[in-house]
Amino acid sequence: MLQQHSISIQTQGRATIDISAEVERLVSASAIDCGLCHVFIQHTSASLIITENADGNVRRDLETYLSRLVIDGDPAYLHDEEGPDDMAAHIRSVLTQTEVTIPIRDARLALGTWQGLFLWEHRYHAHRRSILITLSGADI
Amino acid sequence: MLQQHSISIQTQGRATIDISAEVERLVSASAIDCGLCHVFIQHTSASLIITENADGNVRRDLETYLSRLVIDGDPAYLHDEEGPDDMAAHIRSVLTQTEVTIPIRDARLALGTWQGLFLWEHRYHAHRRSILITLSGADI
Amino acid sequence: MLQQHSISIQTQGRATIDISAEVERLVSASAIDCGLCHVFIQHTSASLIITENADGNVRRDLETYLSRLVIDGDPAYLHDEEGPDDMAAHIRSVLTQTEVTIPIRDARLALGTWQGLFLWEHRYHAHRRSILITLSGADI
Repeated sequence: MLQQHSISIQTQGRATIDISAEVERLVSASAIDCGLCHVFIQHTSASLIITENADGNVRRDLETYLSRLVIDGDPAYLHDEEGPDDMAAHIRSVLTQTEVTIPIRDARLALGTWQGLFLWEHRYHAHRRSILITLSGADI
Repeated sequence: MLQQHSISIQTQGRATIDISAEVERLVSASAIDCGLCHVFIQHTSASLIITENADGNVRRDLETYLSRLVIDGDPAYLHDEEGPDDMAAHIRSVLTQTEVTIPIRDARLALGTWQGLFLWEHRYHAHRRSILITLSGADI
Repeated sequence: MLQQHSISIQTQGRATIDISAEVERLVSASAIDCGLCHVFIQHTSASLIITENADGNVRRDLETYLSRLVIDGDPAYLHDEEGPDDMAAHIRSVLTQTEVTIPIRDARLALGTWQGLFLWEHRYHAHRRSILITLSGADI
């Protein structure tokens, strides 16, 4: 069994968005019992992370940390046509993930209890982001 | 051929643990000749890396580097209920890998000569960590 | 359908090299219509990234950024037998990717418009780098 789905997520500017439930729905609908779920974001200024899903402060702290590690509008950047968040967004993407694979077990995403899958928009402004999801495995 | 295995690794606090041999054993037992081995850690305060397997100083230096890059107990962290290593562990996980896929070739993990697969415990205290391994490919 | 290919890329020292076209050629030749393309570099001092493919300044800025984040020849490094870029290369690899999976859709790599796949050589000198590519999916 092999399935591919394209979804699009509307962001509201720099922030993380929990997409676990949306991906889980595709897994449930697929009738795959055991296998893999591959999630790929087709952009270089937004990325994916798996992190703690319970306390929103974790994602606030991640943003605080990353915006300190990767300075917006650093005068060293040559690539700055689209503003101070342009090159910073590309760096932030490279330091996190463009794609993740999550196991499917018992017809569900096998995330740990405290794990969620998040899209991280790195640009200041809202964007529509395309994600391609490929499910493979053995049927129920 | 598709197989899924759950293993658990006991850590002794912040350090790296070579899990290459344990994963290789599952590959050998699977009778898969050519394919992929997906390794997924079901936690957000421990992670996976592939790095140099010969000189233990490489992993000592990685720890020195990462503990300087991600300050334990940074007063900027809001998420600090479980101590100074709590939020630092989540950041360290996001900057490394929650999951890796390694090719299977000639019925073995196709790691390079100097590559090993390591679990990196980011918390100070010992933890039991769950890892889900999904093997897929063509039989011998 | 499952295929595995080994390719080797000659680097000229620290720099990024666009390998998208080379990987795309293998996808085209495979006759896989829908599936996944897994790319694995068998080294710990060179790595892979997906980033912006249009403006070369993006990769210049990534190099500026990473060489500032990971200091060559830091006196804190114990592993320095092969020079100031030795341990820095291992750290740079761990902060980026050893392997990436890209969806195959309509018999092509489903990279976004602005995405390219790059090998990042982290050593100062030229090296021959081995990459293992595993293609899986459904035939046309």
